[in-house]
Amino acid sequence: MKLNIAVLAGDGIGPEVTAEAVKVLKTVAKHGGHEFTFTDALIGGVAITAEGTPLPQKTIDVALAADAVLLGAVGDNKFNALTPDKRPEAGLLAIRQHLGGFANLRPCTAFNALSENSPLRPEVTKNVDILFVRELLGGLYFGKPRAWNKETGEAHNTMVYTKPEVERCAHIGFQLAQKRRGKLTQVDKANVLECSQLWRATVDEIAPQYPDVKVEHQLVDSMAIHLMNRPRDFDVVLTENLFGDILSDESGVITGSLGMLPSATIGGKVNLYEPVHGSAPDIAGQGKANPLGAILTAAMVLRHSGNLEEEALAIEKAVNEVLAAGHRTGDIAGQGKSANVTTSEMGDLVNTAL
Amino acid sequence: MKLNIAVLAGDGIGPEVTAEAVKVLKTVAKHGGHEFTFTDALIGGVAITAEGTPLPQKTIDVALAADAVLLGAVGDNKFNALTPDKRPEAGLLAIRQHLGGFANLRPCTAFNALSENSPLRPEVTKNVDILFVRELLGGLYFGKPRAWNKETGEAHNTMVYTKPEVERCAHIGFQLAQKRRGKLTQVDKANVLECSQLWRATVDEIAPQYPDVKVEHQLVDSMAIHLMNRPRDFDVVLTENLFGDILSDESGVITGSLGMLPSATIGGKVNLYEPVHGSAPDIAGQGKANPLGAILTAAMVLRHSGNLEEEALAIEKAVNEVLAAGHRTGDIAGQGKSANVTTSEMGDLVNTAL
Ligand SMILES: CC(C)[C@H](C(=O)O)[C@@H](O)C(=O)O
Ligand SMILES: CC(C)[C@H](C(=O)O)[C@@H](O)C(=O)O
Repeated sequence: MKLNIAVLAGDGIGPEVTAEAVKVLKTVAKHGGHEFTFTDALIGGVAITAEGTPLPQKTIDVALAADAVLLGAVGDNKFNALTPDKRPEAGLLAIRQHLGGFANLRPCTAFNALSENSPLRPEVTKNVDILFVRELLGGLYFGKPRAWNKETGEAHNTMVYTKPEVERCAHIGFQLAQKRRGKLTQVDKANVLECSQLWRATVDEIAPQYPDVKVEHQLVDSMAIHLMNRPRDFDVVLTENLFGDILSDESGVITGSLGMLPSATIGGKVNLYEPVHGSAPDIAGQGKANPLGAILTAAMVLRHSGNLEEEALAIEKAVNEVLAAGHRTGDIAGQGKSANVTTSEMGDLVNTAL
Repeated sequence: MKLNIAVLAGDGIGPEVTAEAVKVLKTVAKHGGHEFTFTDALIGGVAITAEGTPLPQKTIDVALAADAVLLGAVGDNKFNALTPDKRPEAGLLAIRQHLGGFANLRPCTAFNALSENSPLRPEVTKNVDILFVRELLGGLYFGKPRAWNKETGEAHNTMVYTKPEVERCAHIGFQLAQKRRGKLTQVDKANVLECSQLWRATVDEIAPQYPDVKVEHQLVDSMAIHLMNRPRDFDVVLTENLFGDILSDESGVITGSLGMLPSATIGGKVNLYEPVHGSAPDIAGQGKANPLGAILTAAMVLRHSGNLEEEALAIEKAVNEVLAAGHRTGDIAGQGKSANVTTSEMGDLVNTAL
């Protein structure tokens, strides 16, 4: 199997965690006789510094020519004074648009070895297995008009969705639910927002095509509490861009750290893979970052772009073993404890376990 | 002290929990020789049924003539097919606009007696004391244009804020932080939204006027996780309408039930008081609802409209005593346990403890 992977390591801890993911992918290639090639390109703050723009054309070209794009993280406090369209994050939003993937899959599974780290009780998090399907190309993130007029002091953004945008994402949610436990929870704020009413009606309209999937609707405010009170009740959670951003981050509470969460964005020209965590500039370059989110993201590359399910499972198993053996970066060390491995040591451990 | 209180009990469990809050207010009046009068008026689904509109003019008149408005809950599944502007919730949004209060104060305090109910570990929730200041009259809730065009299948909403809207709410946040632990956490999505950039810049501009308050900014996605991981780190949390809706509900995880959370909306012509929970149509009329959110809301009436701090504290103390004695409605009974009191019994117990 050949895979040409574009590597957009980005800012902060992006490069160090991505390096570990690449290391693991190389091991998988070697064991399985696969041919994975890696092409680096700039995005985010490092691209602004080097090229004056958060997403240089060269990066777009490299990404569009690849079979999969592996992204690290984007964001740097240095650019906080810039307007959203000039910031590192604009590069992330633009690459998402160029690649065209609209369904951002964010699995949240409880790791038994980490159950002591979660602020939630172990009996609440045990066996949680949720798959968020976050719409990634619509809503407030991209809607126009948008502006902050410093003269008048008025700012506005637009939340906008079309029915086809909702449909294509909902179909992915239903199909994934069919392959999992057959439940789809659609989250919105339909008691206030017209956009949410479109979402709810569209999902209800499609539902009869998937008679084996049980659909429920939740309001985003209630969902924020249900997700913590009874996370095991959820299977596939389908929602629009901003709600998906908030709820999938919140689900990091279940593993105890955002640093454990991977994601894959499918449905476009080229799939985009990125850990859910951010660039964490405060710990960047110190070997403190948790590479497991990136490594689990590499597993998603194999699963969704390489059709290498067995290899993906092997990575996930290796991660579990390393955790069971007690290896910890700071974010998953537990209350009052400190890391006993560095970023690259953690990557090596997973590599060896493979 | 005289207080003329408009009572808008609304839908679902609204009437039963409000009745208990009124009972408690009457006891306070009797003990303290105060003169509280109560005027009922319709809102929400019951108003649609009786008068064809979720907010009749009569209700607006009663509310505007009052010293304080005590609201129960609004929302009824019967009206789910209606567009947002015709639904029960439209009555709630409209009364908020008529009264003009823009700062919705939502305290979240951990009740020691309930610590076993939270899915969070007791050591995480212990002594939590957060005050959300949610902007209540702006953002996506009221922004125009807004529409769901069923012909074209497109829907849009507008998030909009002006600098004065942010300023007036921020000043309240800072002033409350001064009286509390001196920390203000402003929550936004400034890495993507222009509206959020306005919020962040405005709060930073005002901050020097409150040198004794420490300001920090958090992104809403990160905040959803911090709020569960380290809730004790937060004092006043200031944010826009939708983010405040989601985060304050999420904070219900800390007490283990939304049914415990009160709110007060200040800054307008007449203050509006409402528990954070919804109308819970599934348990309405069965004596299962938890009246403590409404009763604690009554305490906020005394505090913010009556300047009766001592009486407010007395109610809060009575609630703590009743909880310590083990009295529970279903929502706070704890995993696998059931209620040992009804809604009105709970109200009576607080009344007696007073
Ligand atoms: C960095 C930011 C623009 C991004 C988002 O909000 O989509 C991040 O929070 C994420 O969830 O991938
Ligand atoms: C019922 C609904 C319109 C309302 C809101 O979103 O403001 C409720 O969730 C609340 O928080 O008071």
